Amino acid sequence: MRIMGIDPGIAIVGYGVLDQRGNQLKPVDYGSIQTEAGLPTSTRLKQIYDAATHLMEKYRPDVVAIEKLYFNRNVTTAFTVGQARGVLMLAAEEAGAVITEYTPLQVKMAVVGYGQAQKRQIQEMVKMLLNLPRIPRPDDVADALGVAICQAHSTTFEHRLDKGGRVR
Amino acid sequence: MRIMGIDPGIAIVGYGVLDQRGNQLKPVDYGSIQTEAGLPTSTRLKQIYDAATHLMEKYRPDVVAIEKLYFNRNVTTAFTVGQARGVLMLAAEEAGAVITEYTPLQVKMAVVGYGQAQKRQIQEMVKMLLNLPRIPRPDDVADALGVAICQAHSTTFEHRLDKGGRVR
Repeated sequence: MRIMGIDPGIAIVGYGVLDQRGNQLKPVDYGSIQTEAGLPTSTRLKQIYDAATHLMEKYRPDVVAIEKLYFNRNVTTAFTVGQARGVLMLAAEEAGAVITEYTPLQVKMAVVGYGQAQKRQIQEMVKMLLNLPRIPRPDDVADALGVAICQAHSTTFEHRLDKGGRVR
Repeated sequence: MRIMGIDPGIAIVGYGVLDQRGNQLKPVDYGSIQTEAGLPTSTRLKQIYDAATHLMEKYRPDVVAIEKLYFNRNVTTAFTVGQARGVLMLAAEEAGAVITEYTPLQVKMAVVGYGQAQKRQIQEMVKMLLNLPRIPRPDDVADALGVAICQAHSTTFEHRLDKGGRVR
């Protein structure tokens, strides 16, 4: 199964693509889509959509796992990130992927094992679990890989519960 | 000049298309895109995007004016509406329209003339200004027409200030 994790944003979208074979996780590609602050929002949204569509056509993920927003952030942030998230979900839907969502807490639990984990601990675990030479930069890329790992663990877990069951 | 006003949402997107000739405003079409509450968000976003793209190909608006969110609403609402707004802005960008944004306060000022106007007063003014047989339903449609009127007044005003000036 191929999983693409996404950390949405208007300036930086992190993505990470993993192949899951049994308990093995193999990183396929990871990086970021970045847009310039001076451009109109609609232009930035189209750049994000086009780049995401290109990535999904290239990697054909079975599942696209997108990070849910921290709901303790402010309303303007929620609105801006929401807009970027909308076009990313659209790209995933058009690519025919199953779309899942995980909160930062779920990602922490899946990657590090407890919800109070610091950002740096998550990044170190991502690096270790995927055998990466170094922690991916910017942070959004490591976050996206964390979401993909969270999805992988969730799938493994569900397969144990219900063999052949469809991913949520 | 052809203007499309949009009131974004995930369950109901209101739209209103007007032709502006000098001081004349002629309604071309208005209505709503509606999605079912039981469907996955990504499916609803794609339905909104596809329907909006279809409307923009059909009516080819020069300007698409989108209502900005009330920032006193809660974060979850901002996030959800933001997602819908993202795919609507994408559709407008792809249609090559100039995209503008107005707050509910700007719409009230443009349509009724003062910021404390009630919803019903705005709706009555929309009906009167456009010579409609009745107030369009649901509310989102009247709101979208209000945004389009706000855009029309803003353009008239800017043309007076700066002949031939490009719409923001």
